[in-house]
Amino acid sequence: MKIVVVGSVAFDNVETPFGKVNDVIGGSATFFSVAASFFAPVAVVAVVGHDFPKRELEFLRRRGIDISGVEIADGPTFRWTGRYHEDMNLRDTLDLQLNVFADFKPKLPESYRAAEICFLSNIHPSLQKGVLDQLRAPQLVGADTMTHWIQDTPDELRDLLRRAEVLTVNDEEARLLSGERNIVLAARKILAMGPKSLLIKRGEYGVLHFSADSVFAVPAFPLEQVFDPTGAGDAFAGGFIGALAKSADFSAKSVRRAIVYGSVMASFVVEKFSFDRLRELTDEDVEQRYRQFVALTEF
Amino acid sequence: MKIVVVGSVAFDNVETPFGKVNDVIGGSATFFSVAASFFAPVAVVAVVGHDFPKRELEFLRRRGIDISGVEIADGPTFRWTGRYHEDMNLRDTLDLQLNVFADFKPKLPESYRAAEICFLSNIHPSLQKGVLDQLRAPQLVGADTMTHWIQDTPDELRDLLRRAEVLTVNDEEARLLSGERNIVLAARKILAMGPKSLLIKRGEYGVLHFSADSVFAVPAFPLEQVFDPTGAGDAFAGGFIGALAKSADFSAKSVRRAIVYGSVMASFVVEKFSFDRLRELTDEDVEQRYRQFVALTEF
Repeated sequence: MKIVVVGSVAFDNVETPFGKVNDVIGGSATFFSVAASFFAPVAVVAVVGHDFPKRELEFLRRRGIDISGVEIADGPTFRWTGRYHEDMNLRDTLDLQLNVFADFKPKLPESYRAAEICFLSNIHPSLQKGVLDQLRAPQLVGADTMTHWIQDTPDELRDLLRRAEVLTVNDEEARLLSGERNIVLAARKILAMGPKSLLIKRGEYGVLHFSADSVFAVPAFPLEQVFDPTGAGDAFAGGFIGALAKSADFSAKSVRRAIVYGSVMASFVVEKFSFDRLRELTDEDVEQRYRQFVALTEF
Repeated sequence: MKIVVVGSVAFDNVETPFGKVNDVIGGSATFFSVAASFFAPVAVVAVVGHDFPKRELEFLRRRGIDISGVEIADGPTFRWTGRYHEDMNLRDTLDLQLNVFADFKPKLPESYRAAEICFLSNIHPSLQKGVLDQLRAPQLVGADTMTHWIQDTPDELRDLLRRAEVLTVNDEEARLLSGERNIVLAARKILAMGPKSLLIKRGEYGVLHFSADSVFAVPAFPLEQVFDPTGAGDAFAGGFIGALAKSADFSAKSVRRAIVYGSVMASFVVEKFSFDRLRELTDEDVEQRYRQFVALTEF
């Protein structure tokens, strides 16, 4: 099954306790699509400036990612500058420059419109809806969101949630969206807003998945070095949606396996800056870590 | 196999976001022994004052717990007063009165000395060692500790760790004891101090188990209401050690199952104040939640 993803393609300046980099490639759509490309065909809708390196677009293309929907606009590429604390579950956004993203109106190439699966990364809910409206008949719609949209565009977000089968959020976003502190009660309320599946991303503590009749928990992979958590949530979503697309099976069992593949991809992406760890990764690396997840959790 | 546990038997005054109680029964040895009593014979070494309710000692006895090693001393019983934050992973100790515990010298009744398993709850490492020295030939020694002992009695603690097969700590204690922020590196260093098994308790995020050749992760059970986290770590240890004692099997597979039973007991104890949830619990309740842990984690 083909996946269409909309989101940011960006430059990141990142500082973690282990180092500092400028002008590395980031963005939710980038992390998502590179992770998903290990499993299924992905097509990206995004915008970059003329300053965005051609070789990086070429890298995406070589991974089989369709970038015909990536617009190259006048102006600089979206840029995020952030710093992680000693406790890397915490980070500060030091600067955010929307640049070409400020006027972004996602337009899907005709070849995208038959995609069976759509993932709406963390952008304005009206833009997310705009992408969804251009798809003919998606069988599975996933969405991500953040505190900013929950607080500032609640009505647009609620509209979108009625059309999304899967929502990914973190603990804080789940609490804010539901008004419930307890995560189980929060999940119930969010499922009542529309999504059939809720994935709560908890950083180094793993992922919780809620559906009407089931709860599933996967720990994060215990790593000796978490180098840079940037993009972990997007790589998780990419691995998850990618594995679902590959299996073409949305049963509860398949969803669980896909969540583990999402956790696998997140565990790799944090091992280096940007998505550098994914550049060198093989399918066998992915399968090997999946088996390590089995060993980590079976009893 | 018979378990001997040493630790506190106490009065607790507890405030959580859901309510406030005074003079409820607490203490590490109490939580441990009640949880362990669902699986195997337990014998407690502790001290209480004459103010400690006879009916509560009688309750322990009715659960098959040997309390012949619980000394009744002149003076008031140990008392802890604490308050949990909205985020119940955090709590403040408002008051601590050692009372009869200040002069506690654990003395094991002769009938205790052949116990095969020993668990040394969180007390001064020299007292822990004093109990260990009175046992003839324990096959499995588990120990708990806390920040206070790691900082103030490092040498005594190191001595003890050389004699303990299993250590239970939380994230913060693991980092302090090892000097490593990363939890995998912290675990490696702690295993090099003696224990063959390290259990890192992470509250609502579950438990990580490290041994020389394996890592095992169990999520906490997602509950609609965590009423009072007090005693969760001790009930976890009780369920874990109890299940090991019942199986009389210390293989890796048996250890993993025992960790899940520990998680089961912790998940119950937080549902009410004190160990009130365990008072009414049946063996079938325990087995049912074990099956729920299977459903929560299998993929």
